Amino acid sequence: MKNREGIERVVHAFAEAWNRHDMEAFAKLFAEDAEFVNNVGLWWKGRALIKQAHIATHATLFKHSRLTIEDIAVRFIKSDVAIARASWTLDGHVSPFGAPLPERPGISVNLIMHIDGEWKIVDSQNTDIAEGVLAPPQ
Amino acid sequence: MKNREGIERVVHAFAEAWNRHDMEAFAKLFAEDAEFVNNVGLWWKGRALIKQAHIATHATLFKHSRLTIEDIAVRFIKSDVAIARASWTLDGHVSPFGAPLPERPGISVNLIMHIDGEWKIVDSQNTDIAEGVLAPPQ
Repeated sequence: MKNREGIERVVHAFAEAWNRHDMEAFAKLFAEDAEFVNNVGLWWKGRALIKQAHIATHATLFKHSRLTIEDIAVRFIKSDVAIARASWTLDGHVSPFGAPLPERPGISVNLIMHIDGEWKIVDSQNTDIAEGVLAPPQ
Repeated sequence: MKNREGIERVVHAFAEAWNRHDMEAFAKLFAEDAEFVNNVGLWWKGRALIKQAHIATHATLFKHSRLTIEDIAVRFIKSDVAIARASWTLDGHVSPFGAPLPERPGISVNLIMHIDGEWKIVDSQNTDIAEGVLAPPQ
């Protein structure tokens, strides 16, 4: 069952759905009881809330944003469970007042599991990359 | 094998080792091939590098820091694999120039697996909580 390509496909599909701002397709990548923590520590529990939160941000802050996957590292911990750590950059996003924001690099850890014949994200957590910083941001 | 208490014990042991600045005990909580991403997106691969990085920060920035676990949410995805999401606050840390820094809240996702009779962290990623912020920090 170990299928590196299947895992990478989920991560790429995440970015493709994001870039089309297609939150139906986005939500389908998650398991029913998936959890998601965004880059500022907001925590959504369950596919329905993950979808609702992203519908809201893609109508505003992320309306014209573009997510680019830079790299994906896949590690299988079981034949049907993989950790996919993805490095990404986000651009085209704006502040709550509509002001353009600079490109932002980040990293996500995605736990992806084979459920009912499909690879689904069961957990995802995001961290901004603060370049040139050793530990806590100053 | 599902043992919520065993999982919580690992998370508490993480904080206890941190607060004693005992990086031998800290490193023993991780699997040999564990990976760790800190709150600014630095990524360490393998127990040896995780240990080395924390020895360096606990000799400097985190020398007198104190990590307090506020809450732990445990979700088993297999009988021997759990996601432990921990909310924490860090205080007593300083800048690279030794200046005291304010208390910092964060959230970590820890993938904990039963390996050779012990619960070990196979992956950990940290995210700062930016309170009062909806999505990207401004």
